[in-house]
Amino acid sequence: MQFLSDNTSAVAPEIIAALQAANDGYAESYGADQWSVRLDAVFSGFFDAPVRVFPVISGTAANALALATLCPPYGAVFAHEHAHIVRDECGAVEGMSGGTRIILLPGAGGRIAAETLSDAVRANPANVHTTQPSALSLTQATEFGQCYRQAELTALCQRAHEHNLRVHMDGARFANALAFLGCHPGDISGRAGVDVLSFGATKNGALAAEAVVFFNLDLVRDFELRRKRAGHLLSKMRYASAQLLAYIETGVWLRNATHANRLAAQIAAAVPARLVLAAEANEVFLRLSAAEAAALRAQGFAFYDWGAADSGEYRFVVSWQQAPGDAAALAKALRALP
Amino acid sequence: MQFLSDNTSAVAPEIIAALQAANDGYAESYGADQWSVRLDAVFSGFFDAPVRVFPVISGTAANALALATLCPPYGAVFAHEHAHIVRDECGAVEGMSGGTRIILLPGAGGRIAAETLSDAVRANPANVHTTQPSALSLTQATEFGQCYRQAELTALCQRAHEHNLRVHMDGARFANALAFLGCHPGDISGRAGVDVLSFGATKNGALAAEAVVFFNLDLVRDFELRRKRAGHLLSKMRYASAQLLAYIETGVWLRNATHANRLAAQIAAAVPARLVLAAEANEVFLRLSAAEAAALRAQGFAFYDWGAADSGEYRFVVSWQQAPGDAAALAKALRALP
Amino acid sequence: MQFLSDNTSAVAPEIIAALQAANDGYAESYGADQWSVRLDAVFSGFFDAPVRVFPVISGTAANALALATLCPPYGAVFAHEHAHIVRDECGAVEGMSGGTRIILLPGAGGRIAAETLSDAVRANPANVHTTQPSALSLTQATEFGQCYRQAELTALCQRAHEHNLRVHMDGARFANALAFLGCHPGDISGRAGVDVLSFGATKNGALAAEAVVFFNLDLVRDFELRRKRAGHLLSKMRYASAQLLAYIETGVWLRNATHANRLAAQIAAAVPARLVLAAEANEVFLRLSAAEAAALRAQGFAFYDWGAADSGEYRFVVSWQQAPGDAAALAKALRALP
Amino acid sequence: MQFLSDNTSAVAPEIIAALQAANDGYAESYGADQWSVRLDAVFSGFFDAPVRVFPVISGTAANALALATLCPPYGAVFAHEHAHIVRDECGAVEGMSGGTRIILLPGAGGRIAAETLSDAVRANPANVHTTQPSALSLTQATEFGQCYRQAELTALCQRAHEHNLRVHMDGARFANALAFLGCHPGDISGRAGVDVLSFGATKNGALAAEAVVFFNLDLVRDFELRRKRAGHLLSKMRYASAQLLAYIETGVWLRNATHANRLAAQIAAAVPARLVLAAEANEVFLRLSAAEAAALRAQGFAFYDWGAADSGEYRFVVSWQQAPGDAAALAKALRALP
Repeated sequence: MQFLSDNTSAVAPEIIAALQAANDGYAESYGADQWSVRLDAVFSGFFDAPVRVFPVISGTAANALALATLCPPYGAVFAHEHAHIVRDECGAVEGMSGGTRIILLPGAGGRIAAETLSDAVRANPANVHTTQPSALSLTQATEFGQCYRQAELTALCQRAHEHNLRVHMDGARFANALAFLGCHPGDISGRAGVDVLSFGATKNGALAAEAVVFFNLDLVRDFELRRKRAGHLLSKMRYASAQLLAYIETGVWLRNATHANRLAAQIAAAVPARLVLAAEANEVFLRLSAAEAAALRAQGFAFYDWGAADSGEYRFVVSWQQAPGDAAALAKALRALP
Repeated sequence: MQFLSDNTSAVAPEIIAALQAANDGYAESYGADQWSVRLDAVFSGFFDAPVRVFPVISGTAANALALATLCPPYGAVFAHEHAHIVRDECGAVEGMSGGTRIILLPGAGGRIAAETLSDAVRANPANVHTTQPSALSLTQATEFGQCYRQAELTALCQRAHEHNLRVHMDGARFANALAFLGCHPGDISGRAGVDVLSFGATKNGALAAEAVVFFNLDLVRDFELRRKRAGHLLSKMRYASAQLLAYIETGVWLRNATHANRLAAQIAAAVPARLVLAAEANEVFLRLSAAEAAALRAQGFAFYDWGAADSGEYRFVVSWQQAPGDAAALAKALRALP
Repeated sequence: MQFLSDNTSAVAPEIIAALQAANDGYAESYGADQWSVRLDAVFSGFFDAPVRVFPVISGTAANALALATLCPPYGAVFAHEHAHIVRDECGAVEGMSGGTRIILLPGAGGRIAAETLSDAVRANPANVHTTQPSALSLTQATEFGQCYRQAELTALCQRAHEHNLRVHMDGARFANALAFLGCHPGDISGRAGVDVLSFGATKNGALAAEAVVFFNLDLVRDFELRRKRAGHLLSKMRYASAQLLAYIETGVWLRNATHANRLAAQIAAAVPARLVLAAEANEVFLRLSAAEAAALRAQGFAFYDWGAADSGEYRFVVSWQQAPGDAAALAKALRALP
Repeated sequence: MQFLSDNTSAVAPEIIAALQAANDGYAESYGADQWSVRLDAVFSGFFDAPVRVFPVISGTAANALALATLCPPYGAVFAHEHAHIVRDECGAVEGMSGGTRIILLPGAGGRIAAETLSDAVRANPANVHTTQPSALSLTQATEFGQCYRQAELTALCQRAHEHNLRVHMDGARFANALAFLGCHPGDISGRAGVDVLSFGATKNGALAAEAVVFFNLDLVRDFELRRKRAGHLLSKMRYASAQLLAYIETGVWLRNATHANRLAAQIAAAVPARLVLAAEANEVFLRLSAAEAAALRAQGFAFYDWGAADSGEYRFVVSWQQAPGDAAALAKALRALP
């Protein structure tokens, strides 16, 4: 049973249906089609704010293009030391931006504390000899499945703005955070002070579609040109836009995220003493001995080691399509460990 | 009736079917799935040569990533002055490569003559003060719907290699060229001397899939890292790979290209005196007066002006899904022009 | 006798004296020294306009850093096809800017006509698929030793601004143009509409010093950071600034340029029928047969072929330190050709 | 009295004399002059190894160009968290290389331990999702005035090579390290395993000259092109080369470094209890209360705070031109602190 990553999952039926519906005759290319032109309105409604939305096909593209727009080449981005842009994107931020530096911040559970940010800004003063602090990139839910609460996030964004940093949010699992927090989407994005959100749909049921959502509208023309130049402006854009529209309009974003979160919570509830962190979204981090991990794998559970070698920590990711029986079986197997 | 571009067309049934078939449970991410791992073998068979194949989702990505792999940042690429990489990709080659320059070559019908290339190489000598000639990028079929013949292409690639240039082929309409020439795919790619081919599927019936095909295997690791870093390594890669497998294995590449070429030839045959160039692939370039163009548009035919303002030239592109009646209607309307 | 290039000349006595005078004990580093802090005032006086001035040590650095400040990475610069930034800087503009494209313009004598610029702008429309026209780079005196007249230059800059292009001037031989035109420095720079000037001193008597002069003050912070990041902010800046101050304040800029121009004019006057172009600055372009060129070289005159192979054109550059006897000897030898 | 930085010092008499001697008539440009062509031989003799040498005018240029040659754009450089390339070069490494990442290592006194390097390599595994470990950059003497011993350095370089990392050494104060260690220059560079050395002369008496010394000769053509493209190939190269030749051939490198080190040692010897670190090169790091620092400044001693705010640490840098009386006065004032 598969707990490796949510990106091993398939495409949700609503998304497949939307692709088929879009596959009807001719449509204008490069985003002038009838699906793409609705994106801004649909997402503005979703976020209760006037936004501009740009589909891309990967989270790496969304994050790197957004940050290239927020930062000059001699800029610096503050991010958690375990952020996806740091650990898993082959230097895409540095590449897309022409050399922006990422300054690494510690923080329990992948969270960044406002004081940690301020300390780092003070330790990296802006003068002609230094990279220029330009943006904060944070992740919701974090790489460790933790969710910033609305007040916490608002305070962090405010702190960033006080330091003249723009705020980018990597929302590869934004839907999972919304499902956990139960708040309005705008509460933990635009209204909290986020300038640009990478709103992921791929992990949560789309084929390949991420929405780059600009709450700060000053920057969008630069982004559009960077997107094209990076080969991320699709000619048959309707198929990306149709995925994103279906994601929002059918409610599949919430149904899928709620499902995955719920099963993750079931797993966590089975072995509370083993939890490294609370299972807020769709990831469960557990402490296991090497022998225990091996025993679970021998029973057919697939999951990754986490952290440094011999950390004793393991990650289980629940996807939107996880069978409830998978979670029950894992919970049972965990409880049965000696 | 739509003759604007082949990228306004929908997705072919075989490709849609392949996407649905791939949408079956879990699959490993980032290209370790059962579809992606078959790509090298299937395309090696298609080209009758050992190749490595990497899916990306746009022609701009395919071209720019391939050329970034072929050229150092201080390199120069020789290309036709009307090539897609020159006119339509927002400087993607320059951006992806870190600043490689494109040196523009003239040539009738979008073709580059070997002597033109040699003249340009001589006019751009390599010394420490100059960009370093590194690659030739040519297009098959060209932006003007012309097809390099096998001997012509082989001689041009040989000339390029004599100048120590690697050869990239933009094959956004490679299938149309194959359908016209009736030769083996390897005859106008690897065996002709092409190092890397951007083999397009999107215009000819895929959703968003282009195969970057390396005949020169020395370069592939660099390409893989550049692809990831540019946000073009898909997490759910199976859906791109499935498109490409279906494109080859069902023969849809040839059926669609043959169909489009045939209708284009019908249109061209209707008004031979108006042809700017022979209609070899799926594009027809015609001379019309402004009044004639307006009259056609008033009858519902959609097509683009071509070339400089007031050139009197117009482009009609036939897509894989064009109804035969569209072509017949256009042919009739053209013949009826006074 | 040496007519290869003005950069083979030595350093003028006034500049050497200034270096020695600056070599006095401690001075603050990175431009906070007493010489550097005077630059803005001295150059503002020279140009009769409020300017900001930044020393760098090469013309390539001056041009590429200035243009990187004027253009986004997806921008396009219009420049003469024989401009130094095109032919002799190894793609520095493309490199420094992150991939800006240079669009080549023809023009007799290295000059760009306003209509030629407008034609090129129209042929390169700005949309999301294209590089974005961002700047005009022109050269005064041109690579062919020609000088834009004040009215011509003003009209050209105005045309550029109408097209929303910023204007950069490569003034590697700006002093020679001033000496020829006899106008106020501001007349052919800021007041004519130039945004940034690369004001060269190295060819005309400095050791290694070029002043990047901003008339458009909005851009300077970006430039300062780019200069540092490119390794062009000198720690012992006083020695670059002292060169530039001496260049202006001792009048050596004018004396040297006047001398070189005068000797060039003498050479040109000897063989008017052979002139390819009027010798306005310190370069003389002559038509010679291969045998004549060989005969001159056999007599000890060193000079370069010019243009394409077998163009029959040759370039003679007169430097600030050229002995009057050299010019007389060359004139005599030219007249003596059969 | 000035203890802020060694780059506030003037130019040594031997270097000034060399500049004057080079200022003699014409010389070929861009490094074909009689001074430049001797560099490889003179430095090969100095290092007792076949090296290629390229002058640039700043340490930032030397470091960033060298590392851009050693690393692909998707590469990673390991460096000490207080290295000059990290703290003081405005992201030049990231900029020159097209986005290489610097991975920060801790280490007492600015030193990197072999185990620390190995830990970091293990924590940053190379796969398609990560930046590719490509180089180690270390500093000799370190930013804290510490000198790697020959055996330590050899072991560290060997470890780096075992991890397939190339080794760059920032030798802005390499002469000071040599003076302290008393070893052969080759012992702590090429023979120890260094691939490329930024051998600084500016701080230690030159006007603006740093030698980029390649022990690994495979890489030099790439470097030459990058240097030109970055505007760092001087047209009047003779003046940079003459500085470097004089630096080596007159022995001023050693005399100046020995002098500065000796005065630093005198200061350190005065207040051993206050030393943060041993004063091995020309920098002294002392613990002072804020009141003590203020008292010293009130007596006319100029020096910088060091480290984080309120660290209680202060840096005193002795330059080549420091009057012995300055050091004696500082020693006396330090001893006199209550």
